[in-house]
Amino acid sequence: MRLSQNFTHTLKDAPADEVALNAQLLIRAGYVYKVMAGVYAYTPLGLRVLEKIKQIVREEMNAISSQELIMSSLQRKETWEGTGRWDDETVDVWFKSELKDGTPVGFGWSHEEAIIEMMKQYIQSYKDLPASVYQFQTKLRNEVRAKSGIMRGREFIMKDMYSMHATAEDCDAYYEKAIEAYKRIYERLGIGNSTFVTFASGGAFTKFSHEFQTICPAGEDTLYVNDAQTVAVNEEVLDDAASELGIDKTSLKPVVSAEVGNIFKFGTEKSEKMGFMYTGEDGQRHGVYLASYGVGITRVMGVIVEKFADEKGIIWPSSVAPATVYLVQIGKESVSIADELYEELQSKGIEVIYNDRDERPGAKFADSELMGIPYRITVSDRLLEEQKFEFTPRATGVTELLTHEALLAKLN
Amino acid sequence: MRLSQNFTHTLKDAPADEVALNAQLLIRAGYVYKVMAGVYAYTPLGLRVLEKIKQIVREEMNAISSQELIMSSLQRKETWEGTGRWDDETVDVWFKSELKDGTPVGFGWSHEEAIIEMMKQYIQSYKDLPASVYQFQTKLRNEVRAKSGIMRGREFIMKDMYSMHATAEDCDAYYEKAIEAYKRIYERLGIGNSTFVTFASGGAFTKFSHEFQTICPAGEDTLYVNDAQTVAVNEEVLDDAASELGIDKTSLKPVVSAEVGNIFKFGTEKSEKMGFMYTGEDGQRHGVYLASYGVGITRVMGVIVEKFADEKGIIWPSSVAPATVYLVQIGKESVSIADELYEELQSKGIEVIYNDRDERPGAKFADSELMGIPYRITVSDRLLEEQKFEFTPRATGVTELLTHEALLAKLN
Repeated sequence: MRLSQNFTHTLKDAPADEVALNAQLLIRAGYVYKVMAGVYAYTPLGLRVLEKIKQIVREEMNAISSQELIMSSLQRKETWEGTGRWDDETVDVWFKSELKDGTPVGFGWSHEEAIIEMMKQYIQSYKDLPASVYQFQTKLRNEVRAKSGIMRGREFIMKDMYSMHATAEDCDAYYEKAIEAYKRIYERLGIGNSTFVTFASGGAFTKFSHEFQTICPAGEDTLYVNDAQTVAVNEEVLDDAASELGIDKTSLKPVVSAEVGNIFKFGTEKSEKMGFMYTGEDGQRHGVYLASYGVGITRVMGVIVEKFADEKGIIWPSSVAPATVYLVQIGKESVSIADELYEELQSKGIEVIYNDRDERPGAKFADSELMGIPYRITVSDRLLEEQKFEFTPRATGVTELLTHEALLAKLN
Repeated sequence: MRLSQNFTHTLKDAPADEVALNAQLLIRAGYVYKVMAGVYAYTPLGLRVLEKIKQIVREEMNAISSQELIMSSLQRKETWEGTGRWDDETVDVWFKSELKDGTPVGFGWSHEEAIIEMMKQYIQSYKDLPASVYQFQTKLRNEVRAKSGIMRGREFIMKDMYSMHATAEDCDAYYEKAIEAYKRIYERLGIGNSTFVTFASGGAFTKFSHEFQTICPAGEDTLYVNDAQTVAVNEEVLDDAASELGIDKTSLKPVVSAEVGNIFKFGTEKSEKMGFMYTGEDGQRHGVYLASYGVGITRVMGVIVEKFADEKGIIWPSSVAPATVYLVQIGKESVSIADELYEELQSKGIEVIYNDRDERPGAKFADSELMGIPYRITVSDRLLEEQKFEFTPRATGVTELLTHEALLAKLN
């Protein structure tokens, strides 16, 4: 991408009402635009990051044989009445409106009931099980407050997956496979080392659910982790989980974290409430075992920003960065060298943001730091004679002078 | 895709309240699920078709240097007040709701005002122009009636593009480029021959807009086309356009058609109303020239179904079919041959839907016709000895017996 052809540019200031670091940086760097509190648009640069996160999640969901589909935002009242979750007293984040004839409609804040309602049409027999489906869906939630930037919005993108099984054993086995898939996701997103599978509140249907919690100063949760980092428990279930696991809760140390995923089992209770039944080999009707698996896609993007940012700006892990290289050209003589390098890197499949704008070198350097692109390469007139390039990883800020050959070796 | 691992199956009947042929067929074939009138979910098969349509549109928009982004569904009242389009009297398809503190919000039925509002932040000077951006967005429209299946829904996916220019000439030149890009899109979608660039009503800002209209019996419009098929005019502007073009309107013949795209110029009037101004080389503030370019993605999918369907079901053009081959295996001896062919075709990048379910051959054949996959290949015990395969194009229904080599040649 040549920045001269990109409509966003970095901003000196975020909107005065934006209190979250992640949104401040993402707005200033040109990744998101604030529509209102908790509602953001994603610019071409921001969309690139989102799509990279989605693609990693998609590959791991496909790898455990889940099938991608896309549900609707508009929801029928009847779908949600069976579980009592149409009621605003029970679910206080609904946005609702009505059709011209007065029929009430809701906007999907979750799709659990909607998926079950749909799957009832296809799952009739034990032969139709197991099944697993997922989507990347825009969720709308009428949150009272929205002060966490893209970490908790009124409109956000979530990957929600649902697995359906004939037996508890089959459900348990798939649930374990999903945990491993989730671990691979966070590993690939660059936050594997600091993300824990965490015991959390189970809600209405099970004693515990599992959250994936990433150590992050902007997080809203507190985890308790043992020294070996093999056990993590959300503060909300500390006593119960410690007793269940037979460990002394004082052996666990608190750490601030952000939820980046949540998975849980429903047993058959929810299915039975909604009449989601299958005919078994025994000829009898049984409730379908159900589990649900969420990843907040936009939320993860916010957590990554919060976790790695320094005083100069964002630091993207390579796997989700909108480009690998930020190319800066300085002076009048070296333009063609920079142009050639841009074409060469792109032809090798290396994504490059080429700042070919008429700006001061200092401004270009500052932008590359604010935007958090993994490697900055500088082509300048004064390095022409010795045929060298400046190579500066964003994470270290340490510049090396490299030959063309050595430069390419760094990027492979 | 092995159908044994796919949760949808074909249905004998569409819902009784579904009157549109496109939705009836798409529901029966397992591409869409009806949530309520005008609201559909897309199954894994349906999502494949949607993504193919989107990718064709994406490539053509990128080819004219437009940048993809994604706006929000939630809309601020203030954004739409400047043009008077918050008012339900002016725009009668708004879904609206409110935040907890009573702030009204709307759900995006269009994003024209929202895009302008956002671009005001980035476009300041003539140096920032031209710019072109697009998105694939879920639009929500509170239609009184929704009886056209996915051709006119209350929730649907649209590609909307917006181009911004410093001068009318630059806008006109880009508009012409966009018309060519649109022609390539419909060509690639398999409806190029029957899609016309059509003079249509211009709305508030210009005398005419241009629609792309596809001849289709389920269409809601009537076009008037000359014998040479070089001029097409929407009935609504027949007199005006004939007089503008200096042609005798009786030389144009009526034909029923469906709108698959609509593009129009705003001049600077809309920008000026919203304060979308740039500083010119002259140091003065000027209104930005604006044009907008829409393609109804889900609508096009519905039009394609309506246009090509026969009494047996859907007939997809290859470019948007969820797979190229529908593979049927018959008998007990030839399973491994079919498995090998499935792997071989997939390894060559040919997408295959492999019906490996325990079903009667007749049911498999009927499903392959209902689903509209371009080529059916049958591997059966009785063809084992002569080492032949049945090859049946969906469009002709004529079966040939082919050797392995001849079969692969057909698919290349």
